[in-house]
Amino acid sequence: MVQYPTTVDRAFAALADPTRRAVLERLGAGGATISELAEPFGMSLTGMKKHIRLLEEANLVATEKVGRARRCALVPSAFGGSSTHRARTSTPSGRIRS
Amino acid sequence: MVQYPTTVDRAFAALADPTRRAVLERLGAGGATISELAEPFGMSLTGMKKHIRLLEEANLVATEKVGRARRCALVPSAFGGSSTHRARTSTPSGRIRS
Repeated sequence: MVQYPTTVDRAFAALADPTRRAVLERLGAGGATISELAEPFGMSLTGMKKHIRLLEEANLVATEKVGRARRCALVPSAFGGSSTHRARTSTPSGRIRS
Repeated sequence: MVQYPTTVDRAFAALADPTRRAVLERLGAGGATISELAEPFGMSLTGMKKHIRLLEEANLVATEKVGRARRCALVPSAFGGSSTHRARTSTPSGRIRS
């Protein structure tokens, strides 16, 4: 049976990269253009665009064209799915001490 | 520069699969052997062992040999990293309405 990735699958896969997590943290402080996001990483625009595209496909980031730049921001409630998952798996029963 | 996956990278990558998320939900209700986890998925023991190994490498699940079975349980505080990340990215500023 072929299973296609859901939005939740894509969200967790997108979060598995440290650069993309850092981008989300930066966007938590406010919107930014792709150039502004690329600069502190010393990353090319092309490289950052690829990261942003994966974050868009995961519905974590939204972008809009503003003049000649593309402005990025966090999607409201983007983390609803992962927090629901956490709430359902964070009961303390049945755990092994590590 | 080569970057090796951190535990947080591995945790999010492990969570990107619906079977592994379902296993974590099941373990949220209490510990289980690999056979018990495989059965409701109609999955082979070998297949479930691979999922459990990835969850162990991500420090989300711990296992211990009990008699002839291997018992699995959630790792206490396994979701600390992802919840910290969520807290740091969930400020409402700078978002685009979608």
